[in-house]
Amino acid sequence: MKELFADRMSKVPKSFVREILKVTENPNIISFAGGLPNPISFPHKEIAEVAAVVLADFSDEALQYASTEGYRPLRNYIANRYQNAGLDVESDNILMINGSQQGLDLIGKVFLNRDDVMLIERPTYLAAIQAFGLYEPKFVSIPLLDDGIDIDLLKNKLESLNPKLFYSIPNFQNPTGITYSQKKREKIGEIFNENDTVFVEDNPYGDIRFMGKDLPPVKSFLENSVLLGSFSKIISPGMRVGWIVADNEVMNHIITAKQASDLHSNFLTQMIIHRYLTGYDLETQLKKIRKMYKIQRDCMVTMIKKYFPSDVKYTKPEGGMFLWVTLPEGMSSMKLFEIAIDENVTFVPGEAFYSDNPESNTLRLNFSNSDEKKIEEGIKRLGSAIKSMKTKM
Amino acid sequence: MKELFADRMSKVPKSFVREILKVTENPNIISFAGGLPNPISFPHKEIAEVAAVVLADFSDEALQYASTEGYRPLRNYIANRYQNAGLDVESDNILMINGSQQGLDLIGKVFLNRDDVMLIERPTYLAAIQAFGLYEPKFVSIPLLDDGIDIDLLKNKLESLNPKLFYSIPNFQNPTGITYSQKKREKIGEIFNENDTVFVEDNPYGDIRFMGKDLPPVKSFLENSVLLGSFSKIISPGMRVGWIVADNEVMNHIITAKQASDLHSNFLTQMIIHRYLTGYDLETQLKKIRKMYKIQRDCMVTMIKKYFPSDVKYTKPEGGMFLWVTLPEGMSSMKLFEIAIDENVTFVPGEAFYSDNPESNTLRLNFSNSDEKKIEEGIKRLGSAIKSMKTKM
Repeated sequence: MKELFADRMSKVPKSFVREILKVTENPNIISFAGGLPNPISFPHKEIAEVAAVVLADFSDEALQYASTEGYRPLRNYIANRYQNAGLDVESDNILMINGSQQGLDLIGKVFLNRDDVMLIERPTYLAAIQAFGLYEPKFVSIPLLDDGIDIDLLKNKLESLNPKLFYSIPNFQNPTGITYSQKKREKIGEIFNENDTVFVEDNPYGDIRFMGKDLPPVKSFLENSVLLGSFSKIISPGMRVGWIVADNEVMNHIITAKQASDLHSNFLTQMIIHRYLTGYDLETQLKKIRKMYKIQRDCMVTMIKKYFPSDVKYTKPEGGMFLWVTLPEGMSSMKLFEIAIDENVTFVPGEAFYSDNPESNTLRLNFSNSDEKKIEEGIKRLGSAIKSMKTKM
Repeated sequence: MKELFADRMSKVPKSFVREILKVTENPNIISFAGGLPNPISFPHKEIAEVAAVVLADFSDEALQYASTEGYRPLRNYIANRYQNAGLDVESDNILMINGSQQGLDLIGKVFLNRDDVMLIERPTYLAAIQAFGLYEPKFVSIPLLDDGIDIDLLKNKLESLNPKLFYSIPNFQNPTGITYSQKKREKIGEIFNENDTVFVEDNPYGDIRFMGKDLPPVKSFLENSVLLGSFSKIISPGMRVGWIVADNEVMNHIITAKQASDLHSNFLTQMIIHRYLTGYDLETQLKKIRKMYKIQRDCMVTMIKKYFPSDVKYTKPEGGMFLWVTLPEGMSSMKLFEIAIDENVTFVPGEAFYSDNPESNTLRLNFSNSDEKKIEEGIKRLGSAIKSMKTKM
């Protein structure tokens, strides 16, 4: 009998988060595991209002098949926003997709032959390992330092391995919260423009900077770049509206892949989001989110200081939704996870974010989807789980 | 310099329809080219009403990230509908996707290694050739006869080639409008249950039968089957809500592939559609569509009789959205297309629907998206284009 399933399926890790979420349906559990926005941040009333207008006045268009590229006025809005930030992006360079996650699949499809070398950050977004993994590249991971990727090693691997792609989340990375410095962004431009590796810049969190100064997209220093954006973290993830920015040649292939994948993205929600963006002030919405997440992030940092043993290390992100914890050498966050479940608190063990040789003493905490009260209580429980684990070592 | 794009991209035909649609933006053109439902069929008022309720009362859930599998109450509804039709389907066997098109991509991803043999109908849905083609199978096409697939040849190829998949649209096929007879459905059960080829049953049009008697899904005779369904043709395609039915083992892999592709499908529209289905009577909606499409189909058949030369052959489908025209031997529908454009009428030349050796004297006509007046005028123009082409032969 022949093997029923394709080889690629045997190479893909099951999503850890999905497995975890099953464990954590207990309402007493405080979860720092998911990557969910705080639903308080959704513009509920505004979305209801604009949806009513779209469905009253434009439903022939909103409910019908539409172009693969997406709703032109929304693509214009996004292009304009990039232009205002100094980027040379036309609406023809923008394709609407189902959240930026779909961009990873499309990029894999368009670029990756089996065994092509692909560089990733170490650690990196676990669903990127899944999405690209289905195209069976050889992953080579480059460590993240406090100010972004290890540039020397990156340069070395670019030259010695001639990779197809480098996948990067330069702002408030998932899982670490780390942001590339201005200097590293410039340096990346220099070293990438010497070869033809494509820099895949995933930027779902860029608008959620609540401290420090905005930095230019790495794209502004690059020739070969694909950029991903999303409304998931700033308006609503359930509507699945993201986009991909690419030059014309790459875009042609991406459109072909998108059309084969699902013809086009949900048109009703593209029109709803466009009407929201033009009828309301996005900056007001962003300010609301930034203020809220700063409070939650500050609370989490404060509580970690208070409740975790002093030899536990952690990042202090200036934006985004996550911070990254490193337990003392020799402690396993997978084991901690089991103890934590008994204490009714969860997180994602770091192992999920490595394509190989995981650092098993790391873990990811989400601060965007818990209020201060929950954060204090959850970190207290987690601190006690860490301490009880240490006493057993 | 290394090749930038993946090999698979060079093997995929650009969508003909997409190219055609660009030509046909002229409002004077009558288009039988697309596969669009008539927008009159959309339940505009009802969708607006239920969307308002979902966004007023359930927006925390509708706007948030959700499970990969999809909205459970909607999956329950779909499972129930299958159960009422005598099929053994539980909601756990249903995954919500972005229109049934996404099912083709996920099935390709889960099952196909490069060079696996895959059987398809001849001709077949052009976007299926695209979607599966990206996984680089060896397509082997089996001719459709008036009552469905050529069973003897199918049996022969199943035995001699041991294919992974057979992709079929048993009801009102796209592009031909052909439906498999009861006898062929039963026979397929017999021959497929002797081997382990998976029967992929795509059924976007099954609910739009406006003549004749409903026939059981081929799935009811099969062990190894994946079934695709969609609300695109009966509620709204712009909302991109379809589903895939598979047994538990296959479903596990499909969920992994779906999650890697885009995490989950649009949740707001899943909730809107569920509320529509439970708040209104779907049968009333289906009757409205069937009545309208029967009138349009009858009109097209009548006008073809009146305006086409008598040696032009065509199918007379009992449902769906398309009929299939065969011009006299030696006439090219691609050349006809150019003449027809000058007459301000379009269609899709048959070549687009073949993976190899196209029958260049065929073409597809869509009757769902034109009213009787347009159908009469369009078929008249097309008849005159055919006649003018014949005189030049």
